[in-house]
Amino acid sequence: MSAQPDSPSPSPALPATPDFDAWPVDVAIAAVDHDAYTLTVIWEDGRRSHYHSIWLRENAADDSTVNPATRERILDLSRLEAWPTLEQARLEANGAVTLAFLPEQRQLSFHPGWLRAHDYANLVEHEPALVPRTLWRGVDRDAPITLDAAGWMAEDHDAMSVDPLLEQALEAVIGEGLVRLRNLPTEPGSLDAIARRIGPPRPTNFGALFDVRAKPDPDSNAYTSIALPPHVDLPTREYQPGLQLLHCLENDTVGGEAVMMDGFAVAEALRDRHPDHFATLTRVRWCYANTARTSDYVWFDPMIKLDANGEFDEVRIADFLRGPLMAPFDEVEPAYAALMALQRLLREPEFALRFSYAPGDLVIFDNRRLLHARDAFDVSQGGSRWLQGCYLERDEARSRLRMLKRAKRRARLEDA
Amino acid sequence: MSAQPDSPSPSPALPATPDFDAWPVDVAIAAVDHDAYTLTVIWEDGRRSHYHSIWLRENAADDSTVNPATRERILDLSRLEAWPTLEQARLEANGAVTLAFLPEQRQLSFHPGWLRAHDYANLVEHEPALVPRTLWRGVDRDAPITLDAAGWMAEDHDAMSVDPLLEQALEAVIGEGLVRLRNLPTEPGSLDAIARRIGPPRPTNFGALFDVRAKPDPDSNAYTSIALPPHVDLPTREYQPGLQLLHCLENDTVGGEAVMMDGFAVAEALRDRHPDHFATLTRVRWCYANTARTSDYVWFDPMIKLDANGEFDEVRIADFLRGPLMAPFDEVEPAYAALMALQRLLREPEFALRFSYAPGDLVIFDNRRLLHARDAFDVSQGGSRWLQGCYLERDEARSRLRMLKRAKRRARLEDA
Repeated sequence: MSAQPDSPSPSPALPATPDFDAWPVDVAIAAVDHDAYTLTVIWEDGRRSHYHSIWLRENAADDSTVNPATRERILDLSRLEAWPTLEQARLEANGAVTLAFLPEQRQLSFHPGWLRAHDYANLVEHEPALVPRTLWRGVDRDAPITLDAAGWMAEDHDAMSVDPLLEQALEAVIGEGLVRLRNLPTEPGSLDAIARRIGPPRPTNFGALFDVRAKPDPDSNAYTSIALPPHVDLPTREYQPGLQLLHCLENDTVGGEAVMMDGFAVAEALRDRHPDHFATLTRVRWCYANTARTSDYVWFDPMIKLDANGEFDEVRIADFLRGPLMAPFDEVEPAYAALMALQRLLREPEFALRFSYAPGDLVIFDNRRLLHARDAFDVSQGGSRWLQGCYLERDEARSRLRMLKRAKRRARLEDA
Repeated sequence: MSAQPDSPSPSPALPATPDFDAWPVDVAIAAVDHDAYTLTVIWEDGRRSHYHSIWLRENAADDSTVNPATRERILDLSRLEAWPTLEQARLEANGAVTLAFLPEQRQLSFHPGWLRAHDYANLVEHEPALVPRTLWRGVDRDAPITLDAAGWMAEDHDAMSVDPLLEQALEAVIGEGLVRLRNLPTEPGSLDAIARRIGPPRPTNFGALFDVRAKPDPDSNAYTSIALPPHVDLPTREYQPGLQLLHCLENDTVGGEAVMMDGFAVAEALRDRHPDHFATLTRVRWCYANTARTSDYVWFDPMIKLDANGEFDEVRIADFLRGPLMAPFDEVEPAYAALMALQRLLREPEFALRFSYAPGDLVIFDNRRLLHARDAFDVSQGGSRWLQGCYLERDEARSRLRMLKRAKRRARLEDA
């Protein structure tokens, strides 16, 4: 074990990390130890961390490992003469760890804040959620999480700045699946600039922004005034859009109230009450199809999908966007029995959050988790109802939220 | 069993279908039979098809089932008083089948061409591939499938027209994963209009179109002149883009040859030679991360993914877009051993298709299946190398190909 360094408090001259992130050193390294295949780090709070020699070698930040301009990796491990091992480990005066690697005879230094943040040996959850997911269990409120965005679009923000409103909004979207911003501009098309505060919108055959209002010769039930049952948008795609944004420009018709529900909470209720039907809906691949004049999107998938850990991954529920089921013959009647059990659940008021849109409202929701619906509205008595919408990938929300958190960490480093 | 109809050849007055597709009647119905839960259709070629009453009821095309303007479903099966059953089945003189449903006492007619096309009881493959997938087994050619597109962009095409060149191109992309078009325009930005012949490009943080050339202050190794190892683009996203288009505008540098390989063929070779490493790479969730100043995309997934049927679904291979592996401690060394076995395979020449880009060339490839790489190029001796690229979803290629096939069926109906 190496000796304690003379000065345990890290100096600013710490080594580069293999990224552009900011890594405050909240706990310093007390000592290091190693064998050929493992580095052990003992932290000042008593934690012991272990890192494999090969993992350390691949995650070094020097010019033989990453392109200094992009910090993207250029090392190909399989071109080394042998499996990388540790010949020496040394705790530096500035708090960094310097390792000597064989067979290269290369000295590489590691940043203590970065090492602490990537302590994979002590992780309970190996891919910690950016925001923990909260299922809606019986809707006990009468509005979405709502933030006042008056003046927000007039503020100057760039990719590096802190933005508490956006941070709160993205945490709600990722954790709860839904957020509402109020008092936004109501100029047609202003949604594009609003969406780009998160990331580039994902265009579809319905355009970059789509207009939800009753229109002649509609190419979707959404563009009529009829009620829409709970659904996700575009289940006809291999990749349903991750996020949907709906921005209210005008709304003074009778009816047209919005309904949102947590598809994962509904799926969980189905699993509790009808485990057989739940299993059927995770197994049978339904046909999702649009029935359009100028496009022909078709995709087959289960209505409820679980990930490798058995957690809910997505729901594909949209009765008006299903084509003919093409399942094996003996699966068809069980599939329909399960579908009808789900349809009945979707009508239970305990799942539904109901609210009305006011001009300047924007809802952002997880389109692979939440179901949205609307009541019929009546334009015969005058008035109009006009929403503009667009899609974004969930990746964009996560990337923006990480950048907002990085901006806060950077501010802490600059304050220190 | 009902009697043979007086006129077995279908008249044009066939009932609507629940879509906008064209369904030629190649084989007429000879007779129908039914019980409460099943319709049996006997075709003139001897085939017997069976359809469930509930399936038929949900796929009817009348105004109680679909919105006539959009042909999207409005029926909610769970609102019927009882499970729909058949009271009567009748073969009409025009070749259609009319069914009387209980409990609604509703008569609904079905189109024989549509019924034949949706004969799920006789399907061997329940979701027949639009184009069967062909793995590259040892690359035995020196160029991609290549089509001459001279003049193609000057032709008039819309969503309803036939287009043999595009049909061939999409069949190659879906089946082989790759196609090359030559002699396209070389105006900067012309890729946008070319891509829109398939569908709307998917923009990313790199823009709607991205420029692949060496540039100052690069934000990706792609935008330098260094060699790039075999990789997919944007594995840092939950949904890697399905298709990538690369359009050559200028290329007179030394080097920069393109290399493409079939990631599924490589994965299959890994399974054959090192089943343990293959299993590891389908299990361990690697970290894919960009290391950028203004965005922070991170995604965890296995390097090789299989679908529910054990078929290859996607590969995520891109050494320069991986962040620190955060796997359970005992998985780390096996993961790296498997990675290095894969890296060695990727260097074997049998997998690589090598070719040079000429101005006016466009390659379209499946970005979740193919790996692309390039040799380093040298701009110090003059010359330039400029590709423009964009992404599309695979959905767009499938939808366009279905529309092209629909256009051919419609032409047959009009000729008849």
